Amino acid sequence: MNIAANLEQDDVDALVRQIGESARAASRILARADAATKNHALNAAADVVRTEAIQIEQANVRDMAFAEEKGLNAALRDRLLLTAERIEAMASGLEEVAKLDDPVSRILGEWERPNGLKIARVSVPLGVIGIIYESRPNVTADAGGLCMKSGNAAILRGGSESFHSSSLITACLRRGLEIAGLPADCVQMMPTRDRAAVGAMLQMADLIDVIVPRGGRSLIERVTTESRIPVLAHLEGVCTVYVHEAANAEMAREIALNSKMRRTGVCGSAENLVIDRNIVAAQLPAIVDLLVEAGCEIRGDSEAQAIDDRIVPASVEDWSTEYLDAVIAVKVVDGLEDALAFIEHYGSHHTETIVTEDAGAADKFLTQIDSGIVLHNASTQFADGGEFGMGAEIGISTSKLHARGPVGAEQLTSYKYIVRGAGQCRS
Amino acid sequence: MNIAANLEQDDVDALVRQIGESARAASRILARADAATKNHALNAAADVVRTEAIQIEQANVRDMAFAEEKGLNAALRDRLLLTAERIEAMASGLEEVAKLDDPVSRILGEWERPNGLKIARVSVPLGVIGIIYESRPNVTADAGGLCMKSGNAAILRGGSESFHSSSLITACLRRGLEIAGLPADCVQMMPTRDRAAVGAMLQMADLIDVIVPRGGRSLIERVTTESRIPVLAHLEGVCTVYVHEAANAEMAREIALNSKMRRTGVCGSAENLVIDRNIVAAQLPAIVDLLVEAGCEIRGDSEAQAIDDRIVPASVEDWSTEYLDAVIAVKVVDGLEDALAFIEHYGSHHTETIVTEDAGAADKFLTQIDSGIVLHNASTQFADGGEFGMGAEIGISTSKLHARGPVGAEQLTSYKYIVRGAGQCRS
Repeated sequence: MNIAANLEQDDVDALVRQIGESARAASRILARADAATKNHALNAAADVVRTEAIQIEQANVRDMAFAEEKGLNAALRDRLLLTAERIEAMASGLEEVAKLDDPVSRILGEWERPNGLKIARVSVPLGVIGIIYESRPNVTADAGGLCMKSGNAAILRGGSESFHSSSLITACLRRGLEIAGLPADCVQMMPTRDRAAVGAMLQMADLIDVIVPRGGRSLIERVTTESRIPVLAHLEGVCTVYVHEAANAEMAREIALNSKMRRTGVCGSAENLVIDRNIVAAQLPAIVDLLVEAGCEIRGDSEAQAIDDRIVPASVEDWSTEYLDAVIAVKVVDGLEDALAFIEHYGSHHTETIVTEDAGAADKFLTQIDSGIVLHNASTQFADGGEFGMGAEIGISTSKLHARGPVGAEQLTSYKYIVRGAGQCRS
Repeated sequence: MNIAANLEQDDVDALVRQIGESARAASRILARADAATKNHALNAAADVVRTEAIQIEQANVRDMAFAEEKGLNAALRDRLLLTAERIEAMASGLEEVAKLDDPVSRILGEWERPNGLKIARVSVPLGVIGIIYESRPNVTADAGGLCMKSGNAAILRGGSESFHSSSLITACLRRGLEIAGLPADCVQMMPTRDRAAVGAMLQMADLIDVIVPRGGRSLIERVTTESRIPVLAHLEGVCTVYVHEAANAEMAREIALNSKMRRTGVCGSAENLVIDRNIVAAQLPAIVDLLVEAGCEIRGDSEAQAIDDRIVPASVEDWSTEYLDAVIAVKVVDGLEDALAFIEHYGSHHTETIVTEDAGAADKFLTQIDSGIVLHNASTQFADGGEFGMGAEIGISTSKLHARGPVGAEQLTSYKYIVRGAGQCRS
């Protein structure tokens, strides 16, 4: 038994290593491809996705059957589902990425030194990116497409539920690469559902440059703990709507409702509603009206409960819980400083918004909140690469190193210094 | 015995945690300090260093005595030594950092979306930076000063050999902060030589945002393996001088000599000399003349040895060894492609230079070599933040994420997105 299990682990390791090696080789060629060739590959891949739409739907039917067998809930099954419309959205998403400016070979800075050395800082691809994600099969197209655009080879490891859909989408991307004369191995998918493959990936620091985990807390924690490779982490979004005493009441209602309820399963959905004591009695009931009508459960501290009996008690865990569901926690605070301290303590440094007509209070909030995205008078649901004008995104980074906020093609590059001399030696 | 050891570990943990908490609190204030206040602190710290110069020399005498007791070799003792001149260099280094542009609150990008949202990407400090370094006490001033400039609180953990010197230099920085009205705890040094303190630091992901290890391979490996905090790694420099067939022979000699011998103990010192077969017989002996005269040992492959009998055999390990000493390994190659493959395989992606008069060959080398710094007709010893015009540096990053090449004040920042709306909700 033990021997067989070991052999199996060895097999997985060998397989993953082989994928890493061909990714590395392909990445060398892709890194040197010009913008037109990469865009050709993306547009060709979009065409192949459209041609294969029926086959993709059929593969998805197999995944959906597997999901039902495994007893996945309705929300997860919806994330997994591919309709004709969603498949078309993948294809046009690839075309959108093709239209973006090329993120590689940008001159990020250029200067000359007194000794005549000419220094340029130039953007370059990261190399090989390993992306580990959960159910949604369209991440395969988004992540693969962004890697193609940014000159990086991608090793994709999707959720086991989306195995058939993702395999076929990967095949479309590979066909697009071939049509443009690029190596198909620029995009590869783990050809196994074996969980050991993830472990093997995380050890290959010589063949994978960056790991991007995209999924729930347990996935991120596993990856962060096990990885020998630098991780671009996308942690949870415990996002806050802060209704300041100088808020426009109608705007506050609309922003609270939209931030929480537009979609509850996204990381930019608000989980906490923080409101100033001065205005809580006047404004909270109307906000609760809208939320309750939309089907939201409302928890809150004792002050909030005293004002509105539809509010049930919140525990201390509530303030730092990412519900990803129709639940929000209300906290009454004693003004801006108190709100800043609360968000600092309980938030996840992802996205927060202040609703106020007071420009000074807004500036203080925007400056002092230590989150990747801070908004004034706008919904937290704008936390999204597309909404930022970046085309697709591979996720929202809560790291402070490298990329923070939405991670698009530009954020998947590094840089190098090119120095041109005329024989200079250092004294 | 066991209980005492456990208690001790608990004490260290509690101490390190307390330092982390006061660093976090101080970092909030420093992050909001304006450029003038931070520069005031840096200039005041420079004055204090000058006032305390004699005391710093005396503290250094104690460290030097400890180093001799421990049997440190001459090169390491030289790195540890502080002279009046070196102390003055620390003071003027702090003043140089004060003169740099403020790296915080730079607008890195600004755009408006069709829905009227105004988005700005603004640089912000990283927060709390933990710096773990070896012997050289002047790193204390450089690293502390760069953190002050970039609005980051610093937790310094120097080598145990430099404990007394570094403690006093830290005290000078703290006095400078106080003079400018900033919290002294913006810069703290581990008040213990206990190695367990490093382990405790590496676990404090909630209080330290980034770890910067600066030192030898074993330190970097320990930190990379143990750290729960993102690491900005400064790996070894296995740097290459490539003498292309179209090299100017005199320039090649000077660049080879300077790249290897100007200082052998720095990461930008060349460890490999790669030379084209076409010209090896004509040019190698004169290069060897210069190197041997300067006291360099030369190892090489069989072809190199056949040409010059002062060259001793190189083993395969030589090609990827960072000697940090007066030793260089010579490899004969069959042109540019062969050189690129050799460097890709054996180099450490730090710094490489090509010597050639052929602009096409130079461009290909500069584009295709995957290193943080690539030079044409210049010495690898220019791999240095000061030489790049960045003021001081905290090290040379071989990471691809976040910062690559010299890490100065600008590289110690992150960014956030500030979004200004007028009530926008997402449809």
